[in-house]
Amino acid sequence: MSNNTITLTGVAATEPRHLVTADGLQISSFRLASTPRRFDSAEKKWNDGDTNWFTVTAYRQLATNAAESIKKGDRVLVSGSVRVREWESEESKGTTVEVEADAMGHDLTWGTTQLTRQPHKADAASEPPTI
Amino acid sequence: MSNNTITLTGVAATEPRHLVTADGLQISSFRLASTPRRFDSAEKKWNDGDTNWFTVTAYRQLATNAAESIKKGDRVLVSGSVRVREWESEESKGTTVEVEADAMGHDLTWGTTQLTRQPHKADAASEPPTI
Amino acid sequence: MSNNTITLTGVAATEPRHLVTADGLQISSFRLASTPRRFDSAEKKWNDGDTNWFTVTAYRQLATNAAESIKKGDRVLVSGSVRVREWESEESKGTTVEVEADAMGHDLTWGTTQLTRQPHKADAASEPPTI
Amino acid sequence: MSNNTITLTGVAATEPRHLVTADGLQISSFRLASTPRRFDSAEKKWNDGDTNWFTVTAYRQLATNAAESIKKGDRVLVSGSVRVREWESEESKGTTVEVEADAMGHDLTWGTTQLTRQPHKADAASEPPTI
Repeated sequence: MSNNTITLTGVAATEPRHLVTADGLQISSFRLASTPRRFDSAEKKWNDGDTNWFTVTAYRQLATNAAESIKKGDRVLVSGSVRVREWESEESKGTTVEVEADAMGHDLTWGTTQLTRQPHKADAASEPPTI
Repeated sequence: MSNNTITLTGVAATEPRHLVTADGLQISSFRLASTPRRFDSAEKKWNDGDTNWFTVTAYRQLATNAAESIKKGDRVLVSGSVRVREWESEESKGTTVEVEADAMGHDLTWGTTQLTRQPHKADAASEPPTI
Repeated sequence: MSNNTITLTGVAATEPRHLVTADGLQISSFRLASTPRRFDSAEKKWNDGDTNWFTVTAYRQLATNAAESIKKGDRVLVSGSVRVREWESEESKGTTVEVEADAMGHDLTWGTTQLTRQPHKADAASEPPTI
Repeated sequence: MSNNTITLTGVAATEPRHLVTADGLQISSFRLASTPRRFDSAEKKWNDGDTNWFTVTAYRQLATNAAESIKKGDRVLVSGSVRVREWESEESKGTTVEVEADAMGHDLTWGTTQLTRQPHKADAASEPPTI
């Protein structure tokens, strides 16, 4: 089990980068800007909170379809799990917050979509990635 | 706060029904069939579990866009909250399990989508419905 | 994958029933009343919504510990997945809405808890049940 | 709306720090180590994945009760929303991944708990914090 589940909405802040590993695994990732709405009890209205930034990563068929579908600026809905990774290079170090997507789509709150079905290997996609 | 949050994927088993109340509130709803994959420890493989049936309901702009976008048979991703309602008529009684959607989209695990943005009243959509 | 994930809070409306199957599988279940708070835009305040009723079911060590810990009236937090089951007997038929718990605990919003650790077979509990 | 919802389990890796602001707002926070279990298709078994680290923060009554209840090493279940914050001081910069808890409790998968109810101001706790 993944141990954490997250669902979030936001704006794709970059075009998805798509690559295929030497083993044939498709991977796509893009940056997502997610801005909460907060209710201000004093002013009795909703305001924008601070934007949270995530790297969204998808694998296999979802990676390929997301790369073909999602453009910079699109509103999306993503569900999956969070990975927090510390990294260190010779010059610098930092933290990456990654959402590994189990499913995602354009958020219909903000537009309409036309679907084109793609061939799908059900078994491969239903198993957790083993990378 | 909604007190429960659910995220689910499945197949739209009906076309969305769309209506506008006398007060001008847009409402759409459709039936969603959601079939889990379960890992069989004995057989060491993933099998289909029993299908769970939900009524998905959306309000406002999300209702209008969902009704225009989602067709029977489409794979979708929905996030929102669950309402369990007991109902009783003269002849019969039963239980309805409704997911009130905060966001939804075509699930890109199964296809690609082309987005058309729609005008959006941010404030109205961000507030919880007051029906 | 479970295909749906739900997290909810509410009040245990019954004492947990605990049983062990002939195969040695521990199962506990209780009824949970979950009442949302809704923001009323007109009145500019939070009100109670209609209560949603769920049957919460747990397996294995979680079942045993829940049965020992949770009393009728306790506030709890549950995460897991929803199963919607239609049933029919000779006299009647209906729908059961069950949350199969992956984890749960007393909700610390409403009280303090003292923990007693219990021996745990990690592998068994981490695998999805195969019932 | 919070725009993201997360539910996670893990081990409290520090004792909660508890403070009260000049305005009387109670805040508690602790570090949570959350280690996923991943299914290895080749080996056909579950393995530990890499640990994800989060700072869990709670406000108001939940903060006070969590600080009294949770000890370093306890297994907990948390639901809330994620905030990703970039920070910079004169000497250094970094990223903090914070889960703002709406509810939390000891995870009954790993032990039993005894509850002591605490007086509760329902309205205050039900509103989103306005900090």
